Amino acid sequence: MAEQFDPTTHPHRRYNPLTNTHILVSPHRTKRPWLGQTEPPAPSNLPSHDKNCYLCPGNARANGVINEDYKTTMVFENDYAAVLPPPVPAAPAAPHPLLTAEPVQGGCDVVCFHPRHDLSLPTLSVDDIVAIIQEWTRIYHHRGTRDGIKYVQIFENKGAMMGCSNPHPHSQVWSTSILPTLPAKELSNLRDYAESSAATTNGPKGYQNKPCLLCEYVAYERTARERIVVENEHFVALVPWWAYWPFEILVLPYKRHIPSLTHFTPEETRAFAEMISHVTIRYDNLFSCSFAYAMGMHQRPLPPKRVEGALIEDEDDIAHFHVHFEPPLLRSATVRKFLAGYEVMAEPQRDLTAEQAAQRLRACSSVHYSRA
Amino acid sequence: MAEQFDPTTHPHRRYNPLTNTHILVSPHRTKRPWLGQTEPPAPSNLPSHDKNCYLCPGNARANGVINEDYKTTMVFENDYAAVLPPPVPAAPAAPHPLLTAEPVQGGCDVVCFHPRHDLSLPTLSVDDIVAIIQEWTRIYHHRGTRDGIKYVQIFENKGAMMGCSNPHPHSQVWSTSILPTLPAKELSNLRDYAESSAATTNGPKGYQNKPCLLCEYVAYERTARERIVVENEHFVALVPWWAYWPFEILVLPYKRHIPSLTHFTPEETRAFAEMISHVTIRYDNLFSCSFAYAMGMHQRPLPPKRVEGALIEDEDDIAHFHVHFEPPLLRSATVRKFLAGYEVMAEPQRDLTAEQAAQRLRACSSVHYSRA
Ligand SMILES: [Zn+2]
Ligand SMILES: [Zn+2]
Repeated sequence: MAEQFDPTTHPHRRYNPLTNTHILVSPHRTKRPWLGQTEPPAPSNLPSHDKNCYLCPGNARANGVINEDYKTTMVFENDYAAVLPPPVPAAPAAPHPLLTAEPVQGGCDVVCFHPRHDLSLPTLSVDDIVAIIQEWTRIYHHRGTRDGIKYVQIFENKGAMMGCSNPHPHSQVWSTSILPTLPAKELSNLRDYAESSAATTNGPKGYQNKPCLLCEYVAYERTARERIVVENEHFVALVPWWAYWPFEILVLPYKRHIPSLTHFTPEETRAFAEMISHVTIRYDNLFSCSFAYAMGMHQRPLPPKRVEGALIEDEDDIAHFHVHFEPPLLRSATVRKFLAGYEVMAEPQRDLTAEQAAQRLRACSSVHYSRA
Repeated sequence: MAEQFDPTTHPHRRYNPLTNTHILVSPHRTKRPWLGQTEPPAPSNLPSHDKNCYLCPGNARANGVINEDYKTTMVFENDYAAVLPPPVPAAPAAPHPLLTAEPVQGGCDVVCFHPRHDLSLPTLSVDDIVAIIQEWTRIYHHRGTRDGIKYVQIFENKGAMMGCSNPHPHSQVWSTSILPTLPAKELSNLRDYAESSAATTNGPKGYQNKPCLLCEYVAYERTARERIVVENEHFVALVPWWAYWPFEILVLPYKRHIPSLTHFTPEETRAFAEMISHVTIRYDNLFSCSFAYAMGMHQRPLPPKRVEGALIEDEDDIAHFHVHFEPPLLRSATVRKFLAGYEVMAEPQRDLTAEQAAQRLRACSSVHYSRA
């Protein structure tokens, strides 16, 4: 028992303070050497315009509408929306207290990133990504100021492995009359942390100068460096201590507490665009393939109110803007992680440690493999 | 707005009292007619003995050990265990309060169901399944009475779609020095319910004659019938109100509050074996294929103590034994549900309602398609 605890050898469990859950880490199962890329790069055979793609300029969508000849981004309401606009009838009384339901209304938007069918975030220019961020910001404001909307979720599903059938670069925005489970949990934990006076670093403070869990976490990580993948003037990308997906990344601002997209300065917008480019290029380079992932932004549930142009602070400023990248790939362009029995029945589990994943992502080139 | 709320038309959100989470239901997206099976039955080409299978009798496992010539079940310790036996060094102090870890020790067992490589729960006899349940009960007791173990998780991963590479019928048992996230949440919610005096049915009561969330839930479902798939003398299989996976099933005893496998009478063991057979046969018949799923049992974290042969009641009897079946298939033997962006970033979502899923499963034959 004189042996020292070694997080790269001994099974252990890490705590995720953002969601108040745990992850089981089994690092001894990755003792075999890392062989790096095992498959030849998958050539991208995508045409720059696909006449069968419902997102390409000039083509027809499911409802017969013809896409405009767009040059930057294009937004439209999803024809297969998961939630619908009002009116929604009130739910009947629960047949039993254990069987409750509430109606949900809202809207689902599709945001095309670019007219080119064959490009994606890692191959778009930083200017293109700035235009996408501006579009997200606009929708966040537009949807988030409508009656009855309580939350706006911006996300991207990339790759067939994530169930995304169309490679044309696009994201979605679902706006709902409810605050969904995961952001609600995160906000609640951010709120508890603000009251805990637990901050130990010299990092920035959050709403009302109280401690912010993510300001504090990122300040510590920037001194530790072990889990940092890349950083720039305003943003950092890291594999969080409590990462679940093998190459999960958290992107967040570190210089100041930023509650939402609406709060970005032009410099911060540009730095965020650069960071999205950095992260997605490294992802593609990791296995020389178009890397599948789910990406989602967490921020204030709704944009802040403005009075005479100034953003009004309120309780929702407890939120610290951040982006989760959750990719399923594990060892190569084709070997994915499965959400298997123990994980869905007991507790999420991983083999590769967050530190090992960060090291591999750091080692990736910052130039996209298709251009190297 | 005079329109009535219709759970098969209007988007809504259901509450899961067992885990204190929600699920978004978008039933309007399933309005197209159900076309039933779209692919020919996949013939099972498995040999009854495969010389390359490390689980078949007489073959060698990864560590060189030769499997005995077993006739019913066979148990051995997993060569790639996610947790290891003690001693485990103590974890060092957290480098920062937000980065905590604790060592986890324990053991991982593999339970082969049967020597035949080509059989599985739906094609094994009820007698075979009784033998498997007895083996699970034995391991639950054996592992659950060892020093330092706090939880025993029995689960099965079936099918390549669940990341299970070997079709030889088997399950796993992971025993750990921690109470994992999901069972901990369920136990906590069962405990809260017991104190809530919220029961409204005449169903059985739980520990110390207090209300039991699952006794109460199943009593209501047996009157409503809408979500019941099949039931026998002691057990019922239903698609829970809050189901997430398209054809998720919850199996649980309804006649009395049963905290664990250890509490089963011989009649209950047999009824449970029959119920496993019923459920897995219907699953295979749904798309005429060997149906992939994750299956897991939730019960008392550890078996009860005995004094002079009698089971001693204690606080952990708050648990109500139940089995979750979580299958990924959605529309055919090859069309699966993806855990996509909105779900991992915001809230789990489904299209097909629990009632529709139950109806389809009820309509399946009780005779396995390979024998029909
Ligand atoms: Zn978040
Ligand atoms: Zn359970």
